[in-house]
Amino acid sequence: MEQLVSSDFKLGVVAGGQLGKMLTLAASNWDVKTFVMDSDPNCPSAHTSSELVIGDFRSFDDVLAFGRKVDLLTIEIEHVNVDALDQLLKEGVCISPHPEALRIIQDKGLQKQFYQENDLPSAAFRLFESADAIRAAYAEGSLELPFVQKSRTEGYDGRGVFVAKTQEDLDRLLPTASVVEAMVNLSKELAVVVCRNPSGETKCFPPVEMQFNPEANLVEFLMCPADVSEAIAKASESLAEKVAESMKVVGILAVEMFLDEEGTLLVNEVAPRPHNSGHHTIETLYTSQYEQHLRAIFGFPLGSTRIKVPSIMINILGEPGYAGPVKYQGLTECMAVEGVKFHIYGKKETRPFRKMGHATIMDPDIHRAVEKARYVQQTLKVIA
Amino acid sequence: MEQLVSSDFKLGVVAGGQLGKMLTLAASNWDVKTFVMDSDPNCPSAHTSSELVIGDFRSFDDVLAFGRKVDLLTIEIEHVNVDALDQLLKEGVCISPHPEALRIIQDKGLQKQFYQENDLPSAAFRLFESADAIRAAYAEGSLELPFVQKSRTEGYDGRGVFVAKTQEDLDRLLPTASVVEAMVNLSKELAVVVCRNPSGETKCFPPVEMQFNPEANLVEFLMCPADVSEAIAKASESLAEKVAESMKVVGILAVEMFLDEEGTLLVNEVAPRPHNSGHHTIETLYTSQYEQHLRAIFGFPLGSTRIKVPSIMINILGEPGYAGPVKYQGLTECMAVEGVKFHIYGKKETRPFRKMGHATIMDPDIHRAVEKARYVQQTLKVIA
Repeated sequence: MEQLVSSDFKLGVVAGGQLGKMLTLAASNWDVKTFVMDSDPNCPSAHTSSELVIGDFRSFDDVLAFGRKVDLLTIEIEHVNVDALDQLLKEGVCISPHPEALRIIQDKGLQKQFYQENDLPSAAFRLFESADAIRAAYAEGSLELPFVQKSRTEGYDGRGVFVAKTQEDLDRLLPTASVVEAMVNLSKELAVVVCRNPSGETKCFPPVEMQFNPEANLVEFLMCPADVSEAIAKASESLAEKVAESMKVVGILAVEMFLDEEGTLLVNEVAPRPHNSGHHTIETLYTSQYEQHLRAIFGFPLGSTRIKVPSIMINILGEPGYAGPVKYQGLTECMAVEGVKFHIYGKKETRPFRKMGHATIMDPDIHRAVEKARYVQQTLKVIA
Repeated sequence: MEQLVSSDFKLGVVAGGQLGKMLTLAASNWDVKTFVMDSDPNCPSAHTSSELVIGDFRSFDDVLAFGRKVDLLTIEIEHVNVDALDQLLKEGVCISPHPEALRIIQDKGLQKQFYQENDLPSAAFRLFESADAIRAAYAEGSLELPFVQKSRTEGYDGRGVFVAKTQEDLDRLLPTASVVEAMVNLSKELAVVVCRNPSGETKCFPPVEMQFNPEANLVEFLMCPADVSEAIAKASESLAEKVAESMKVVGILAVEMFLDEEGTLLVNEVAPRPHNSGHHTIETLYTSQYEQHLRAIFGFPLGSTRIKVPSIMINILGEPGYAGPVKYQGLTECMAVEGVKFHIYGKKETRPFRKMGHATIMDPDIHRAVEKARYVQQTLKVIA
């Protein structure tokens, strides 16, 4: 696959958000041509790709036409039109990850069944066709509160997830076909970004620990390495590898996990693409998740996943109460903090809790990194 | 200066080679718009800048027209038309580094006089108008062999430098106005990349040790940190800071130094821009030289210059005997080596010894990094 460097080879990426942007930046390091498809001419990848093609990732026609222009197709969002990918496969276009894996991942019901069939531990679940069916199950006594309702499709960044704790919550269920999961007695949430190449080689980045903003249900604080025992770390990596091998994914697979109070690891959700929980790899691992994804889909050997320095990653979110053309306040003060590295994605409009960027805070002392991260969160404001 | 992020602010960069490319990639991380001027529509920065403007960096008219389009102008090559920069300054365009520093640096004669006037140690020298004048000085006995002849202008990447050792060499002198320097009893060649911002804050990256390819007179092997005593390291940083302060440079200044056998440091040459001897900073320092340059010219506080992991940087040069559309051989094998990170610049044509890319080899054990670097040099071939 050396022919793809400084040549006419075209890597296609659906779509052009921040993950697409960071992927095209990694491709630039090797002078690989990137074609990105996005519906927004001002998307984050607009100026980092070789060419931006305007198109909707949910549209059969747009994805098909785009895929026909490129030599290898990959994604930065899993909600791509899979029927178009199937057609492209038939026409001989190379696609990583495989559409079959995407079809499973797009539907949280199929995802849960897949875990079950492949002996991958995950929270107990039932599938329901509608909110009414959930209420009926509760009424007849076969379902107990509390539980987590997850929309089978279209969930993203915390959307499509509802936690029902009280009887009143039953009136506010999502009106969709859903997975209903038992609540896990959560000790920690971990994520392992694993990568697999076509020869079946897999490599895991060390597990990271995620802390959530309860209001926005978004990761806001990500610690690398995770504060877990060596045994838990190893077990989380084995589990991630097992998921990647079962799904036969080529490229990055981010595996979000629950560690429950008994020390059991449960797969929560997976994403077959570079992921928010791997942003810190750009600065603090020997290989970034973006380069690793490229290595895998290009058929290169995978890169080292050693840690160079511990870090905290924080998402930079749109401040609640502001919407419109973005302004960043406090950047200068934050840049004075030793070891802070900013990534501003280039979204022109802010909205409450919109992911506008991230910062990786490096420090040999992880506790000091936490303090610095808190300072940045309090000081940097994304307003309109 | 926070207004330059995700705004209409335009950073102009003259020109679009590999240094321009890596600078625009750093600007992308902050969503800062970059306009690059280069005469080659396929230059390395073609797809990494927001806009590529075709123009010649030596042309008064081209540089003037380009500078008028941007809000802040910087350079990746020092041989830019300085008269145009002077005119732009008068018109109120912000320029970093200052044209006055560029004027001194463009002429190695003025550079040497500047060192002398500012008590900056450098090898003893004389200025000559022509090769004949050098021969006359030798004939009359006021100049002794061996010596180093350096063309006052246009020197770059080892061109414009001639070492005269024998009487026969006197027939092969460069036919230009020159600096003639005494040969230094060289122990090591070091480089310190220093950065200075408008408030006068300076920060040095730790000194690196350079080893040259004698045939091409190009750095081919760069070790970070340099294998020198703490005292020499500190002295080299103080010297680099003193040069940056004397020249009142804003942005990166790379200071190449000789360490002679008596342990004395002598300034060799300087470059007021990101530099080949700072490439490793992308992966192995807390802040890259490209981000540091942006921090300085934008007026942000400077970033940390801590080392994350030791490294060897090697240039990837066009193989002798090949010229034409480039091919890379052996990339896959080299990517299997732990800790190797490639940067392929995107030059479409190779030539003997042309800088086509670089690789940074990271390893906590610098001796093992050296072995890996040798393997990469022997395995990777840039051919046509």
